[in-house]
Amino acid sequence: MYELLKNINGPSDLKKLNLEQLNSLKDEIREALFNRLTKIGGHFGPNFGIVEMTIALHYVFNSPVDKFVFDVSHQSYTHKMLTGRRNGYIIDECFSEDSGYTNPEESEHDFFNVGHTSTSISLATGLAKGRDILGDKENIIAIIGDGSLSGGEAMEGLNVAGSEINSNLIIIVNDNQQSISETHGGIYKNLELLRNTNGKALNNMFTAIGLDYAYLGNGNDIEALIEFFKKNKDIDHPIVLHINTKKGKGYKIAEENKEEWHWCMPFDRETGKPLYSFSGESYVDIAKKHLLNRANEDKSVVVVTPNMPAALGLSEKERINLGNQFVDCGIAEEQACAMASGIAKRGAHPVVVTNATFMQRTYDQVSHDICINNTPVTFLLNFCNFDGLTDVTHLGIFAISMFSNIPNLVIMAPSSKNELLDMMDYAIFKSNHPTMILLPGDKPIERETSLDVSNINKFEVTHSGNDVAIIALGDFYSKGLDLYNALKDKLNINPTLINPRFASGIDKELLDSLLNNHKLVITLEDGIIEGGFGNKIANYYSDKNIIVKSYGLDKKFYDRYNPKELLKELKMDTDSILNYVKETIGGK
Amino acid sequence: MYELLKNINGPSDLKKLNLEQLNSLKDEIREALFNRLTKIGGHFGPNFGIVEMTIALHYVFNSPVDKFVFDVSHQSYTHKMLTGRRNGYIIDECFSEDSGYTNPEESEHDFFNVGHTSTSISLATGLAKGRDILGDKENIIAIIGDGSLSGGEAMEGLNVAGSEINSNLIIIVNDNQQSISETHGGIYKNLELLRNTNGKALNNMFTAIGLDYAYLGNGNDIEALIEFFKKNKDIDHPIVLHINTKKGKGYKIAEENKEEWHWCMPFDRETGKPLYSFSGESYVDIAKKHLLNRANEDKSVVVVTPNMPAALGLSEKERINLGNQFVDCGIAEEQACAMASGIAKRGAHPVVVTNATFMQRTYDQVSHDICINNTPVTFLLNFCNFDGLTDVTHLGIFAISMFSNIPNLVIMAPSSKNELLDMMDYAIFKSNHPTMILLPGDKPIERETSLDVSNINKFEVTHSGNDVAIIALGDFYSKGLDLYNALKDKLNINPTLINPRFASGIDKELLDSLLNNHKLVITLEDGIIEGGFGNKIANYYSDKNIIVKSYGLDKKFYDRYNPKELLKELKMDTDSILNYVKETIGGK
Repeated sequence: MYELLKNINGPSDLKKLNLEQLNSLKDEIREALFNRLTKIGGHFGPNFGIVEMTIALHYVFNSPVDKFVFDVSHQSYTHKMLTGRRNGYIIDECFSEDSGYTNPEESEHDFFNVGHTSTSISLATGLAKGRDILGDKENIIAIIGDGSLSGGEAMEGLNVAGSEINSNLIIIVNDNQQSISETHGGIYKNLELLRNTNGKALNNMFTAIGLDYAYLGNGNDIEALIEFFKKNKDIDHPIVLHINTKKGKGYKIAEENKEEWHWCMPFDRETGKPLYSFSGESYVDIAKKHLLNRANEDKSVVVVTPNMPAALGLSEKERINLGNQFVDCGIAEEQACAMASGIAKRGAHPVVVTNATFMQRTYDQVSHDICINNTPVTFLLNFCNFDGLTDVTHLGIFAISMFSNIPNLVIMAPSSKNELLDMMDYAIFKSNHPTMILLPGDKPIERETSLDVSNINKFEVTHSGNDVAIIALGDFYSKGLDLYNALKDKLNINPTLINPRFASGIDKELLDSLLNNHKLVITLEDGIIEGGFGNKIANYYSDKNIIVKSYGLDKKFYDRYNPKELLKELKMDTDSILNYVKETIGGK
Repeated sequence: MYELLKNINGPSDLKKLNLEQLNSLKDEIREALFNRLTKIGGHFGPNFGIVEMTIALHYVFNSPVDKFVFDVSHQSYTHKMLTGRRNGYIIDECFSEDSGYTNPEESEHDFFNVGHTSTSISLATGLAKGRDILGDKENIIAIIGDGSLSGGEAMEGLNVAGSEINSNLIIIVNDNQQSISETHGGIYKNLELLRNTNGKALNNMFTAIGLDYAYLGNGNDIEALIEFFKKNKDIDHPIVLHINTKKGKGYKIAEENKEEWHWCMPFDRETGKPLYSFSGESYVDIAKKHLLNRANEDKSVVVVTPNMPAALGLSEKERINLGNQFVDCGIAEEQACAMASGIAKRGAHPVVVTNATFMQRTYDQVSHDICINNTPVTFLLNFCNFDGLTDVTHLGIFAISMFSNIPNLVIMAPSSKNELLDMMDYAIFKSNHPTMILLPGDKPIERETSLDVSNINKFEVTHSGNDVAIIALGDFYSKGLDLYNALKDKLNINPTLINPRFASGIDKELLDSLLNNHKLVITLEDGIIEGGFGNKIANYYSDKNIIVKSYGLDKKFYDRYNPKELLKELKMDTDSILNYVKETIGGK
C-alpha cells in the first residue's frame, strides 16, 4: 500500500514517474484521502475532484520556485501529500501534523494560510507583481473553484489581472459545477456555455475583460492535464485555464451527493454513514425550526445567505419549501448584506444566515448599508464560540470585538432557549434597527426569562447578592453559573449573577447600583477581550471605586487548540477564577 | 434666473414640461450646480455629467414609487434639485440643508445614505426582492458609474441579478470613461468595445452572465434618454442600460481635466482656480515626499492604491514617474490589500495608500490575507482624524476601534514629523509584520524623538511628573501638550505627558510604573472610545488602584458636525478636562 506515495518526498520525486505510475499514484492518493477523511473528516468533494490536476501541476511546474496559490485552500490535500506531507494522510498518528489548509509553517511549497474564499487571484497578482519588480521569471498559478468565483474579490482580481499585469499569471478555474451547496449566480451560466461549446463560445466573461483563455474538458485525465499545462507554462501574460472536473470523483456516493460531501465527518466507507451521531437538540436546531415556522406563518420573512445554508443546517428540501423566501447569493457576503438592507428598507423581513467568521468579509456593508441606514436586518450567526471551529481561519472569537463597536447595531447574546426565541421574534418582526444574534455554542439551557427583550441594553440579574458580581455573556452564562455556585460553596460568598443579554451596550443604571455593595465585578465572554464586551464594563468603571476583572481570550490568532486546555492556560477556568477572587478580595 | 427650476417642487412638476423646457431646465440646473460648487465645493464632474440623465429618469419614471438607488450617491445633486431640494443649490443660505449624498432624512425620494462605492446593484436587488415578496410592481433602478463597477460587490450584484432576480430591475451603467482618477481594470476594455460597436459586440460581460443589455451612445441628449427609458420602463426582468456620458459636461476646464474636477474646492468660474490656497506643508505632503524619495532610492518599493492616489495627493506626473512601482487597482480595496500581501510575500515592499474610511471595505483581507500571514505590508492612511471629513459616510473616527483589535497588526500614530519619517522607514523596510500608519490631521510638529520606533508598544515619556499622567495618542499629542501646560499653569500640577506612539498595544512596564506616583491617567485619542486605545489602558488598570479617564468620541454616526463644538459637547476640550481633574483629584 502507498508504494509510490511513500517515496514521494517532494515534487522532484514525482517528476521521475511515468504516466502509468502517475495513474497508480492517483489511486494511492485517493486511498490516503479515504484513510484520513474516514477517520477524522474534512473537505471531501473538493479534494477528491482535484487529485489528477494537482499531480499534473506538480509534474509540469517547478514548485516552490513556481508558486501555487490555492483559493480557500481546503482542496490542497493532494498538494500536501506531494510536498513532503503524506504522513498526515497515511499514518494515523500524524494526522495532526497537517492542517486542513495551506500553511507556510508546514512547507516552503505553501505561501499563504487561507481559509476564506475568493482571494487567490488577488494574492497571485501580488506574487506576480513582486516577481516582476524583483526581475524574476517564475510561474505564478492561482487555483480557484468550488464557487469562489462569485465572491467579489475574485472578480476584482480578474479585472486587475486583465489590465494591470503584463506578465506571467496563470489562473486555473476549477469548474466542478458546484459551490458548497449548488452554485448561484449568472457567471455559472457562462461557465456552462463555455463547457458546452468546448470553450469556443464568443461570449466569454474572461476574454471580455481582457484575459487570455483556454479550456480543458477532461480535467480528471492526467495525460490531458500535463499536455495542457505544458502548453501554457511560462506564458508571458495572464491566462485563464478553465478546467472541467468532477467534485467528489472516485467515491460514487459523494459524486451523487455533492453538497453533503463537500465536507464530511468521520464515516463508514461502505455505506457513507457518519460514524458518530449527535443526540439532543442544539441551539442551531432550535433556531432553524423557529425560523422555518415563522417564515411559514409570515410570507414576508426572507432568508438570505452567502452560500451558507449549512450554518443553520438548512437542507435542500427546506430551502425548496421556503421558495421565494430563500435567497442564496453564492459566496458573496457583501451582496447578501446589502441585499438584506434593501429587503428591509422595502418592508420585508430579511434574516442573514452564516457563520461568524465570514461576517468580516462584509464589514463595510454592515456598517454603512445596514447600520448607518438603520435597516432592521436580522443576523443569525453560527460558530461565534471559541470551542466550535478552531482553525485559525475560521475562528468565531473576533465577532464581538469586531461588531460591538459599530453604532446602531444591537448584538444579542442569548443564554437560554426561551431567550433565543424571544430575541429572534423581536429582531425579525419588531426591531427598528439591525440586530445580530450570536447563536450559543453550548448545550441549550431551559430557563425562564424575566425581562422583555425589547428593553435594549437592560441586563438581567438572575441572582442578587453582594461583594462579587459576575456578568456572564451569552453562552458563557453557564460558566458564570458554575462560578456562582463555586463562590457560594467554596468561598462562602453570595455573589450577584447577571445575564447581560446584549454584547453591544451596557446597563449603566445596574452598573451604578452594583457600586453600593460590590467590590469586584467579573466579566466572562466567549471571545477576545480587547475591543469586546468586558472592555465596555472596564471603561465604564474606570474612574469608579470597584475592581473589574474581564475574562476572555487574548488578541491572538489561535490555531487548532484544545479549548479546555486553553481555558486553563488563560486562567479562566472556574478554579483559576476562584483563586483570583480569593487573592483579590478573600473569602468569608 | 432659475425660472423653471424655481417651480419644480417634485417630479410631477417636471413631467408637465415640454422638451424645449426640459432643455432649458438642464441649463438652469448647471447654473445651480455652479452656484453651489463655486462657493462650497463638492463633486463636480459626476454631477455635471449626469444632468440630462437625471432629468430623463424623473420624467419617465414615477419616483418615489419607482425607486432610484444612486451608487456612492455623490452624483445625486440634480436628483435632489428635482425632488424638492433645489434651495440647497440656488439659495446660498440653504446650502447646508442638503448633504452631498442621498439621505432618507432629507426626502422620501432617497432610500439610502451611501458614500462608499459599488453597493447600488446589491441594494437594488434587495429592494426588488422586497417588492416581489410583498407582491408589488414598481421599477427599481440602480445608477452606477464613475469607476464603481470595479468594486467586487458590484460584480456580486450583477452576478445575483443575472440569475436570482426574475423580475424588474434596471441597472444603469453610467459610462463616463473615468473613475476618480483614470479607470483601471479589464472591464473598462469591454465597456470600450461595447461603446465602439454601439453595444453590438458579441463579447459582452453583462450578457455573458445572464443579463439583458441595451446601449445608448448619446447619454447627454434628453430626448434620446427619454425614449430609451420609456422603452425599458416596466421591463419584467433585469437589464443593464449602458449609457455613454461625458464627465464634467458643460464646463470645458472640467471636461478636459476629469481627475482634478472629480471633486472641487470653492473656485473661480472664469479661471477654474481654487479660491483658497493652503499654505505650509501638511503631514500628507511630508509622507508623499518621503515615499517618493524612498521609492526612487529602492526600486522594490511598490505603491498600491484602490483608486485613491488622491489620499496622498499623488499627481498623474508622480504616478507616471513611479512607473511599475505604482499599481492602481481601481476602486477595489480587497484586491489592493491581498495584492499587497502577495507583493510583500514575494519580497518587495508594498505601501497601500488610501483614506481610513475605505479600509473597512477590506477588513477580511487585512485580518486574513495580511495579518494571519504576517506579511509586512505598510498602510499609509489619510483622514483618520475627527476634524477631517465630517460626512457620516466618510468618518475616520472608527479606524482605531476597527483595526486595533486584529492580532499581528501594528498601528502607529505619529505625533511629529520626525516620528512619521522614522515610522515610514521602519514599516516599509524593516518590520516583519503589517504596519498601519495613521497620518496625523493636525499641523506638522517639529520635535526630536528619543525612542527607536522598532521598539514596538514602547511608550515615550516626554515630560515626567506625578499625580496625573496624560497619554495622548498621535495627532492628539498636541492636545495632550495643551492639557499638560494648562494643568501646570492653572492647577499647579506637574503632570506626566506620554506619547504612546502605538494604538494597537500597551506598554505594561510603563503603566505599572505610573502606579507609584500617579492617581489619575487621562487618555486622549482621535476616534471613538469603544474598542479603541483608551479601552486598552482602562482594561489594564481595571483591577489596579488608579483612576482612568478616557477621552474620545462616542460610538455614534456623527454627520456634518462642527469639530470644535463637538469637542466641547463631549467635554474633551482642555477647559472641561481641567474641570474634571479638579473635581476628581483637586488642584494643588
